[in-house]
Amino acid sequence: MSAEARLHPSLRDEPLFAAHLFPVDFGSRTAKVERLARRLAASAVERDRAGGSAQAERELIRESGLLTLAVPQQYGGQGVAWPEIYRIVRYLAAVDSSLAHLFAFQHLQVATIVLFGNPDQQRHWLTRTVQERWFWGNATNGRDTGLKLSPREEHYELNGSKSFCSGALGADALVISAPRGKSPEDRVFIVLPSQREGLAVNSDWDGFGQRQTDSGTVQFEQVFVDASELLGPVGPSPRTTLRACLSQLILTQLYLGNAQGALDAALRYTREHSRAWPASGVANASDDPFIQQRYGELWLRYRSALPLAEHAAQRLQSSWEKPALTAAERAEVALAISEAKVVAVRAALEITSQIFEAMGARATSSRYGFDRFWRNVRVHSLHDPIDYKVRDLGHWLLSGQGPQPSLYG
Amino acid sequence: MSAEARLHPSLRDEPLFAAHLFPVDFGSRTAKVERLARRLAASAVERDRAGGSAQAERELIRESGLLTLAVPQQYGGQGVAWPEIYRIVRYLAAVDSSLAHLFAFQHLQVATIVLFGNPDQQRHWLTRTVQERWFWGNATNGRDTGLKLSPREEHYELNGSKSFCSGALGADALVISAPRGKSPEDRVFIVLPSQREGLAVNSDWDGFGQRQTDSGTVQFEQVFVDASELLGPVGPSPRTTLRACLSQLILTQLYLGNAQGALDAALRYTREHSRAWPASGVANASDDPFIQQRYGELWLRYRSALPLAEHAAQRLQSSWEKPALTAAERAEVALAISEAKVVAVRAALEITSQIFEAMGARATSSRYGFDRFWRNVRVHSLHDPIDYKVRDLGHWLLSGQGPQPSLYG
Amino acid sequence: MSAEARLHPSLRDEPLFAAHLFPVDFGSRTAKVERLARRLAASAVERDRAGGSAQAERELIRESGLLTLAVPQQYGGQGVAWPEIYRIVRYLAAVDSSLAHLFAFQHLQVATIVLFGNPDQQRHWLTRTVQERWFWGNATNGRDTGLKLSPREEHYELNGSKSFCSGALGADALVISAPRGKSPEDRVFIVLPSQREGLAVNSDWDGFGQRQTDSGTVQFEQVFVDASELLGPVGPSPRTTLRACLSQLILTQLYLGNAQGALDAALRYTREHSRAWPASGVANASDDPFIQQRYGELWLRYRSALPLAEHAAQRLQSSWEKPALTAAERAEVALAISEAKVVAVRAALEITSQIFEAMGARATSSRYGFDRFWRNVRVHSLHDPIDYKVRDLGHWLLSGQGPQPSLYG
Amino acid sequence: MSAEARLHPSLRDEPLFAAHLFPVDFGSRTAKVERLARRLAASAVERDRAGGSAQAERELIRESGLLTLAVPQQYGGQGVAWPEIYRIVRYLAAVDSSLAHLFAFQHLQVATIVLFGNPDQQRHWLTRTVQERWFWGNATNGRDTGLKLSPREEHYELNGSKSFCSGALGADALVISAPRGKSPEDRVFIVLPSQREGLAVNSDWDGFGQRQTDSGTVQFEQVFVDASELLGPVGPSPRTTLRACLSQLILTQLYLGNAQGALDAALRYTREHSRAWPASGVANASDDPFIQQRYGELWLRYRSALPLAEHAAQRLQSSWEKPALTAAERAEVALAISEAKVVAVRAALEITSQIFEAMGARATSSRYGFDRFWRNVRVHSLHDPIDYKVRDLGHWLLSGQGPQPSLYG
Repeated sequence: MSAEARLHPSLRDEPLFAAHLFPVDFGSRTAKVERLARRLAASAVERDRAGGSAQAERELIRESGLLTLAVPQQYGGQGVAWPEIYRIVRYLAAVDSSLAHLFAFQHLQVATIVLFGNPDQQRHWLTRTVQERWFWGNATNGRDTGLKLSPREEHYELNGSKSFCSGALGADALVISAPRGKSPEDRVFIVLPSQREGLAVNSDWDGFGQRQTDSGTVQFEQVFVDASELLGPVGPSPRTTLRACLSQLILTQLYLGNAQGALDAALRYTREHSRAWPASGVANASDDPFIQQRYGELWLRYRSALPLAEHAAQRLQSSWEKPALTAAERAEVALAISEAKVVAVRAALEITSQIFEAMGARATSSRYGFDRFWRNVRVHSLHDPIDYKVRDLGHWLLSGQGPQPSLYG
Repeated sequence: MSAEARLHPSLRDEPLFAAHLFPVDFGSRTAKVERLARRLAASAVERDRAGGSAQAERELIRESGLLTLAVPQQYGGQGVAWPEIYRIVRYLAAVDSSLAHLFAFQHLQVATIVLFGNPDQQRHWLTRTVQERWFWGNATNGRDTGLKLSPREEHYELNGSKSFCSGALGADALVISAPRGKSPEDRVFIVLPSQREGLAVNSDWDGFGQRQTDSGTVQFEQVFVDASELLGPVGPSPRTTLRACLSQLILTQLYLGNAQGALDAALRYTREHSRAWPASGVANASDDPFIQQRYGELWLRYRSALPLAEHAAQRLQSSWEKPALTAAERAEVALAISEAKVVAVRAALEITSQIFEAMGARATSSRYGFDRFWRNVRVHSLHDPIDYKVRDLGHWLLSGQGPQPSLYG
Repeated sequence: MSAEARLHPSLRDEPLFAAHLFPVDFGSRTAKVERLARRLAASAVERDRAGGSAQAERELIRESGLLTLAVPQQYGGQGVAWPEIYRIVRYLAAVDSSLAHLFAFQHLQVATIVLFGNPDQQRHWLTRTVQERWFWGNATNGRDTGLKLSPREEHYELNGSKSFCSGALGADALVISAPRGKSPEDRVFIVLPSQREGLAVNSDWDGFGQRQTDSGTVQFEQVFVDASELLGPVGPSPRTTLRACLSQLILTQLYLGNAQGALDAALRYTREHSRAWPASGVANASDDPFIQQRYGELWLRYRSALPLAEHAAQRLQSSWEKPALTAAERAEVALAISEAKVVAVRAALEITSQIFEAMGARATSSRYGFDRFWRNVRVHSLHDPIDYKVRDLGHWLLSGQGPQPSLYG
Repeated sequence: MSAEARLHPSLRDEPLFAAHLFPVDFGSRTAKVERLARRLAASAVERDRAGGSAQAERELIRESGLLTLAVPQQYGGQGVAWPEIYRIVRYLAAVDSSLAHLFAFQHLQVATIVLFGNPDQQRHWLTRTVQERWFWGNATNGRDTGLKLSPREEHYELNGSKSFCSGALGADALVISAPRGKSPEDRVFIVLPSQREGLAVNSDWDGFGQRQTDSGTVQFEQVFVDASELLGPVGPSPRTTLRACLSQLILTQLYLGNAQGALDAALRYTREHSRAWPASGVANASDDPFIQQRYGELWLRYRSALPLAEHAAQRLQSSWEKPALTAAERAEVALAISEAKVVAVRAALEITSQIFEAMGARATSSRYGFDRFWRNVRVHSLHDPIDYKVRDLGHWLLSGQGPQPSLYG
């Protein structure tokens, strides 16, 4: 049996992750989630190496029945609370951070329709999401100002392009954003079937991590947009700005998932493969006090981050459930997410880089793919600078004022 | 009004700590706790400077009615759960870490009687604790082997000394430990009124922090011990080893309390006194991005530590409530406390040292006493080396085996 | 023999510091410096505890013959290069950081006269410095705008006050600065005998570290200043701005000196007093791998900082020796000093706080005074915020532009 | 012009690295080194992506005339001192860390012959090295015990394999090590032309960093070894153990080279491509205080490490020049190298990971290859665990005893 096979818990009759460290409990959905995770795990290293689009695995996700988690039950969805969705995202990210991203962004697009769609739009698009088993992609990068929405006589037209469109390739439908006024914050969301004429999804994503997120460019050339495809109108309100919060907390789960995946894989490797260092005076690497210490330290990083993410998810859910939200309540959610995100980013970068010290030189063989955890976190954590999250926290501590809602939290 | 007075929230009509950062809620006991905290706050800086024994403030604690929190209701006590007790300890520690230590150790001695006393002993000593409003001290330092318990014909005799006997000076009664066999882990607990002949409590504590914990030496010269004053016998069981867990989590709260006190005092100082640095280009220190960043960073340290302490307290309470405890359950409690403790120690050391960067040079005036937070944490966190807690975690991660119960967790 | 005595290398027939770690070589001045250091060491802990002014020890410094190190040979001084002076400062700071500060600032005031005095003034004041064995103090805090120099008919008058006037108490003469124009950078230096009428030096320094630097307030009430006592005029030039560089690099040496003192004392304590932790499985604390590791880590902090300080001193000396200096050359010196300072501050804070982990709880007894190292560094490193030094470095890396000369580097 | 081209200083008429940050001065060899570096730079990113063996670039190195730097002049070599060789290695590593490794190991094999060869062997092999322009490879991994040297009647025979044989593929000759006794430290060096029958060099290196070091496996099947091809005999002496020191300090230079390459590339990218973050309030990313701060911090890491590496090289050279070396002198060299190595590893890991924060998300495109710096350092720094270097330092600080010479320093 090859080393890879031996390392693959998915091919052994045992849990994907050490159960006492990373307990799995998604209630009635546990079996479905586990089954999906195992199937993704079986090829995750290889697919990371190959890059490109994972259309087959997207189908596995579709078949899992988990694409409707966030769709309200009134539209045939499962109406699962965000903390539960986030835990599933995190678990899948521990196995395959790219596919977990696409999975998570499905729910973000669904939430976008819930937040910004009028009742008819919600019913229309979410019902189709359930019935036609849609996988949503997005073209909503807020810093990219290259897409214009122009009014025509009775319709609108999209021209230009958007970058970083995770999940757009192979998606059934897209949530798209375009500026309405001059401020990047003032924008409108559009929902379109991805087969709409004039819309072209490029396969040009070449990040060194999150390699299968299909985060390429989408081109729009005289793309027809019916007025009904513009979500809303909904007035700007603290509640709609929860979209950025939902998104930021997805990122956080992906970092933590990678941290979990890295820790678990490394512990397994050290136990099964690492050799004791001659000067250590012990027979097994697992008995080396410095290796024990390093794992202890990395675990503490993980454990410091996890409860903040859980806490933020609870806060977000409470706000989500309120029909109206005050600016102060919204600020509290954003601050809780900022705390969780910053701590998670740093923990994940440390963990995914330092596991190697505890595994040793032979663990750097490409066949194990252990570097993918760091590459995933490194690429993904640059979504927006955490320095400004830290500053927001300090500003709030000193002034009592929460951060202004923005596209980034 | 002097600077000190202005800094003293206790003399201003406002909460002791910023309410949005450090919310206070001890249910029906809130007013009592707050009143005690305010009275301790009024002289905390001055008493830290003076050192020595704070007998008057010990009386304030006694009068607060909070000495019976841990005493089961069946003996007339309040039977409060540990998470609640710990929160009160933490709050008091933010004000006065020395007195909070004495307050917390009261509950540890009560717990010792609960864990190790037979039913008669529990009834006898805990009823007296309530009725005579006893303040307990201890002489239980496990590494100090200078105290011997010798059987005489019909009684026992204590000879020798114990160091680090926090709270012994001025205590009404003492919990004392003495070796039973050769291992330091194998020891017996003794309860004695502190007026017992031959027992002398020295006022020789001179630590540079936790200055009013009266953690001096107790001398024993032919001290008579009645057989009934030996707690037990109880067989060694995972449950009795919870004593060390209770103690370790008290320490954790004291670190967090100091962190809270330091953060709150520093934020207040920066807002009210710090001057903007010329090169910052801003008018107020509170608008300096680097000062905001520093507070953001320190806050993240605090926030990373707090949920681990809360989580550990919940785990401890669950175990406490079980009549019997397996070794595995006990190990889980110990590991949760280790996590909480290590993260808290480091957070508290960082916070109490770095607040000064955000306050500036004038904040080092002795009249503010802002260095007491670091001194308290520095002294108190040396109780036992955290390196071994980290190693225990790593050993558990690699082997699945929890730490051996010991006097230190 | 008491513990203190045993710890006092000055009372043992051995080097003050471990020779293989902290080699001592001040050429022909080695014996003088060592003798002074030993005499300061004998009472350093006690004097730190007592605080107040160390007039007797100032006399020891005066008697050492080292007050004229920086005075050019043409005025009877020793004309020692700055790197050598800095090494002596560092060595003394390892023993007594307060007195080392006063000693170092003597040379800064001498340099002020060299940089800003016209030839007559240099000759006059520096000759007197040598002949009358003056110990200089200062009243030059640039952020304190409370002192005004007003022209009278044929003289000037000083009114107001200055804070943080290290070494003013008991000084023979003072270097004083007062604003000339509106910018704090535009100021004039004044030299006055400290007995001048109307000049009062308060004994009001109460910092919790650097306790014997006499850094109190100086009051000026209609203090007569002769025109000849205004240094200069010298036009503003890169060369005169070296004063701030000289000062910043003094601070750096004091941090490193405290780091050296702390490391050496701690190593000695661990070797001689620390007990092995039971769980370590070794007989002596010195054999505990985690204690070895901690000392290794602290040593690496020290070793990372030291060469930067030496390098900066060499750069400074090269610039000092040039009759004219370009702005670019001046910027290089400032940047080298910024590098050295930031790394030294952080190393010293870490070292002085973490030595305790390697010594254990008993090392926190006040009689050892081991906390003075942290208190000294903590207080002294707030002189000006290092955040802006780091930013200056980053700005230079990105733009190629050096920092603007200021009062702080 | 493509982004890559614009980023390629080698294709612009400007220095490869910012001259004020990374000055280049290799005396009379500067032009040769620069020319080689430019040629390697032109394809470094592409070759890292492709992996595999860089035979064409090895020829560029051969043609550079720099393969004989370490060969003593008496054998026709250049006899360059180690500090100079190390600086060249570092510079090349900033461009192409894989080829720099092969280049550096050439000199290590030459040194092996100098240290272990008898005079005839030195003359023979080193003269051939010069005259036949040999590029040496190695098969000396000390932890791999899979290779046996067996005496036959009049010759020896090698059977088995060695892993991690950097530079073996395509080498003209190999330095090989095989155990002599039972201890891995007791081994003999063998020099063989790589065309020797039975010797097969596999192309099986698949590390995720240092991708073109050809560090694969060498197979030996009944490989004939003439007695004259066994270096020596030389008795074990502190001097021969300098081989491990030479090797460790090569590693150190490679880390620092990657740090330099990463810093320079990132600064260039930020200046030319990064966009200011909306919340920063500045127009250019280079003016963002947090970006300036980050570069300042990364620079401080680099600057803390560099002088230690230079210092260690000087110490090593002094020892190299001594005909005999005491154990104490050897220990000092090893300790200096340990200091340099540990600080360099950590600096390089931090720098190569954190540059991305200062560049932003678009810098993660694979076409830039900016992740190669981290991958190179991460893989290469696992050569042997730095934890034991830190422990060695601590052990020396506490006991005064230097580390035992080993294959790793």
